[in-house]
Amino acid sequence: MERNLYSLKEIDTNDLISILNRASAFKNGEISHYPDRVVGNLFFEPSTRTQQSFIMAEKKMRIQNMDLYPEGSSLVKGESLYDTVRTFEAIGVDAVVIRSKEDRYYEALRGKVSIPVLNGGDGSGDHPTQSLLDLMTIKEEFGDFSGLKVLIAGDISHSRVAHSNIHIMERLGMKVHLAAPPMFQEKGRMYQDMDEILPEMDIVMMLRVQHERHEVRTVLDPLSYNRSYGMNTDRIEKMKSTAILMHPAPVNRGWEVTDDVVECGRSRILCQMGNGVFVRMAVLERALRESEK
Amino acid sequence: MERNLYSLKEIDTNDLISILNRASAFKNGEISHYPDRVVGNLFFEPSTRTQQSFIMAEKKMRIQNMDLYPEGSSLVKGESLYDTVRTFEAIGVDAVVIRSKEDRYYEALRGKVSIPVLNGGDGSGDHPTQSLLDLMTIKEEFGDFSGLKVLIAGDISHSRVAHSNIHIMERLGMKVHLAAPPMFQEKGRMYQDMDEILPEMDIVMMLRVQHERHEVRTVLDPLSYNRSYGMNTDRIEKMKSTAILMHPAPVNRGWEVTDDVVECGRSRILCQMGNGVFVRMAVLERALRESEK
Amino acid sequence: MERNLYSLKEIDTNDLISILNRASAFKNGEISHYPDRVVGNLFFEPSTRTQQSFIMAEKKMRIQNMDLYPEGSSLVKGESLYDTVRTFEAIGVDAVVIRSKEDRYYEALRGKVSIPVLNGGDGSGDHPTQSLLDLMTIKEEFGDFSGLKVLIAGDISHSRVAHSNIHIMERLGMKVHLAAPPMFQEKGRMYQDMDEILPEMDIVMMLRVQHERHEVRTVLDPLSYNRSYGMNTDRIEKMKSTAILMHPAPVNRGWEVTDDVVECGRSRILCQMGNGVFVRMAVLERALRESEK
Repeated sequence: MERNLYSLKEIDTNDLISILNRASAFKNGEISHYPDRVVGNLFFEPSTRTQQSFIMAEKKMRIQNMDLYPEGSSLVKGESLYDTVRTFEAIGVDAVVIRSKEDRYYEALRGKVSIPVLNGGDGSGDHPTQSLLDLMTIKEEFGDFSGLKVLIAGDISHSRVAHSNIHIMERLGMKVHLAAPPMFQEKGRMYQDMDEILPEMDIVMMLRVQHERHEVRTVLDPLSYNRSYGMNTDRIEKMKSTAILMHPAPVNRGWEVTDDVVECGRSRILCQMGNGVFVRMAVLERALRESEK
Repeated sequence: MERNLYSLKEIDTNDLISILNRASAFKNGEISHYPDRVVGNLFFEPSTRTQQSFIMAEKKMRIQNMDLYPEGSSLVKGESLYDTVRTFEAIGVDAVVIRSKEDRYYEALRGKVSIPVLNGGDGSGDHPTQSLLDLMTIKEEFGDFSGLKVLIAGDISHSRVAHSNIHIMERLGMKVHLAAPPMFQEKGRMYQDMDEILPEMDIVMMLRVQHERHEVRTVLDPLSYNRSYGMNTDRIEKMKSTAILMHPAPVNRGWEVTDDVVECGRSRILCQMGNGVFVRMAVLERALRESEK
Repeated sequence: MERNLYSLKEIDTNDLISILNRASAFKNGEISHYPDRVVGNLFFEPSTRTQQSFIMAEKKMRIQNMDLYPEGSSLVKGESLYDTVRTFEAIGVDAVVIRSKEDRYYEALRGKVSIPVLNGGDGSGDHPTQSLLDLMTIKEEFGDFSGLKVLIAGDISHSRVAHSNIHIMERLGMKVHLAAPPMFQEKGRMYQDMDEILPEMDIVMMLRVQHERHEVRTVLDPLSYNRSYGMNTDRIEKMKSTAILMHPAPVNRGWEVTDDVVECGRSRILCQMGNGVFVRMAVLERALRESEK
């Protein structure tokens, strides 16, 4: 049975649904402890939020954790990812979570290491546990995926979230719409007018303006960005009565979402963070359950 | 019942005494384990000593800890303290310890987060657990506070320790005297001649010359500083037979305390460090006991 | 009974053999848990591999760990090693592992602290747990040490591994040969031609070219270095049928060992890493067993 989590593209739908079901079970109090297991969290790129969420998942499962932080990884100096993972395997780590800037870094490990690899985000391509937490939040809200209409809006081009989600949401029968300012549009995709389609959407998923990845501050100001492509009280009121607002966080308050809307009744942003821990518990259990100690 | 610890100014005397009593109980071997609880130690400013002491308190109580170090907190980039604490709350942290450069940073959290906040030092204002460990050390030595005479000497103006202690010591009936070189004096307080009052003091609390906060090295040398305002064998001999020497550590040996006096019979400096763990256990228990899981 | 581990030069042979025997027992599944103990891993110099191996050893033994990383040690600013260790002792740490750039740093602690000190590498002098894992690997392979012939080849002058190993291997009755390019030779030792003695060796221990310690890249290229002093398929074939290849890792692939040889049948490199955890468990047990809680 598959224990790795490289990309949701490689996960069949039954497997995915059973991950979501286990995540819900954990949220409802299911206990599953692995005090004899050690998981390595190898973060070659900073991502405090994802790392803390995995660590929390491990703590809830009494899994022991060994952390490699980007700033402390002298190990890595001149050493390949393969050699680093082989080292962790050799000293007795039972699974690794990896975050890396390299697209599909896991190809260098596939079939060559005996311990499961969980992708904590690679390049600008995939971020499977983020997609899983989004899906869990949607499933909690609507029960099912088929037929749901979702708008993903904002910084599409730099977003792991968008890239991961579009494919899997369509596979699950959702209809994905995109809205983005020209500078954030990725070629080869269709874009729509946000205000035009907003009233039909079940889910509005705003993306973070990734200031650190481009010089948006020099060409945009928050107010005009928010007016054109952001979420605010006006747009919240135009949404369907059952519709929800999502965001991968951290929110740039005032940019893609105004301050007064971040924690409004439609917002599931804090709920998403909480669900992140439960889906990570589920993929950790999936990684560890089959291995014999 | 109050679970936060913002400032000792907000703690009533009964509550304070019961914290000190629990700390003594822990020192005497009382066991109180919370293996299902997770505490976030959010240190936005480096303070290795306070952070390690909290971590040790958590380990002794089998509390799980999640640490945010200043150098690794990409989380914090452009994110408010409020959003960071809400994130930790959302992923399931049961309490947070916070150290920050901002004076009264906790006002932004008061009444807005559901988990207790323990102040690990803010700005140059307050450092309640440091005061608690000082009080515990004094109570161990003298049994009571009322009527005790304490001299706080040295770098008053930059000292969280002085600011936290003066108020609470006076509330507990102690008589606080201050001595400081003009460059370290804070306006609006009275200063006395150290050598004149030394023989009457029960407690002499030396402060650290905070080299990193000003350019004292350029205007002073350790020998002349110590002769004028520091502790040394001569002054130790002038103290009452029952009097003790305290210091928040780390000591600048040769400056505020000479090398040969740091671990002398009157010194409670190492004892203070040990007590720091026990008072932190007490405030962690106070934060966690009331919450239902 | 001795609980410190400063240098193998100070360990008598019976003690050393009993450490190796306990390490083997741990490898064979022996369980020894110390959930009430806390060990401080004080790494003043980065050495991710050694630190992770100690942490893994502690996790397997359910010892709680407190880590001081070089980048986070504001504690250390202007504070002596002695004061830092006394602080950890005062807050209740039961033993410390120390890694430092200072040769024989432990002389400042000898007889002055009440908790055991385990040397995780000092200056370019000693690295006792690395030697122990090498000896464990050799003992597993050959059963005994007496009469074994070992070649240590490469960057002798900068190597803690060479310095630690030569003395102890000779004490155990092994015959140690050295081969090194002139720029890596240490005065006062005899060097031999690698290809001449290779066929007689039981163990070939290659050393890491420590690029970070000198400007070897400017005078050498990997291919010519490997041809003259490195391990490769040609030399592997000239070894005795029972002989093994060792390396302290991380390997500079292509320099001291070619890519195709790192994980060949003769290589014990990954096995050494695994044994590193077991010898560290043994020295941690030796440090903690005698102390009364």
